[in-house]
Amino acid sequence: MPTDALSMTFAALADPTRRAILARLSTGEATVSEIAEPFDMTMPAISKHLKVLENAGLVVRGRTAQWRPRKLKAAPMQEVSEWLEEYRQHWEERLDRLDLYLTELQQNEPFDPNQQEIKHD
Amino acid sequence: MPTDALSMTFAALADPTRRAILARLSTGEATVSEIAEPFDMTMPAISKHLKVLENAGLVVRGRTAQWRPRKLKAAPMQEVSEWLEEYRQHWEERLDRLDLYLTELQQNEPFDPNQQEIKHD
Repeated sequence: MPTDALSMTFAALADPTRRAILARLSTGEATVSEIAEPFDMTMPAISKHLKVLENAGLVVRGRTAQWRPRKLKAAPMQEVSEWLEEYRQHWEERLDRLDLYLTELQQNEPFDPNQQEIKHD
Repeated sequence: MPTDALSMTFAALADPTRRAILARLSTGEATVSEIAEPFDMTMPAISKHLKVLENAGLVVRGRTAQWRPRKLKAAPMQEVSEWLEEYRQHWEERLDRLDLYLTELQQNEPFDPNQQEIKHD
């Protein structure tokens, strides 16, 4: 398993349960029990997911209180976003081509038989 | 291993060699030998990485020619980008707070002893 920061962030995000945990924490800090509540999972399974998120720096433990609420830390996501920017032109080019194709379709369609007849006069 | 599209994309991106392959393909299509060239890796190792990228839909095989050049397909990255947008406010808030903190620092610093003396007069 690669251990560079960006790879660890991507690996942490490669799981729907972990993404759901981040979505929960994006609304505010929560205890482990609160985080676990909506999932049909054992506490050790949830703790393991939290550990992966913590190792990637996406979740931090609050220092206050005994139950140490978990908080979202979005900084690693910003790294992902910056990495993605290099590729934005590639998906936008693709959309531009689709746009061009749809515009061409609109110019030639709908096939209007009356218009054809006029042309033939 | 989760098999939803977004998880597969994140998992495929969670490796520096695979990200380097995508960077190579972002400059244009390439054969497997061309892709393998800069890496100190066996061909089976490179093929395995390409397979992960193909399964995630990030790389496609050209239909022309026997050597079937590989091409970048950025559509899955767009999905990642859209997913990240939900969290943008979190890292921007953090930057706003940092900005505020730096502005406050600038207003109070640098500590100018002359200015202090004037105040004391």
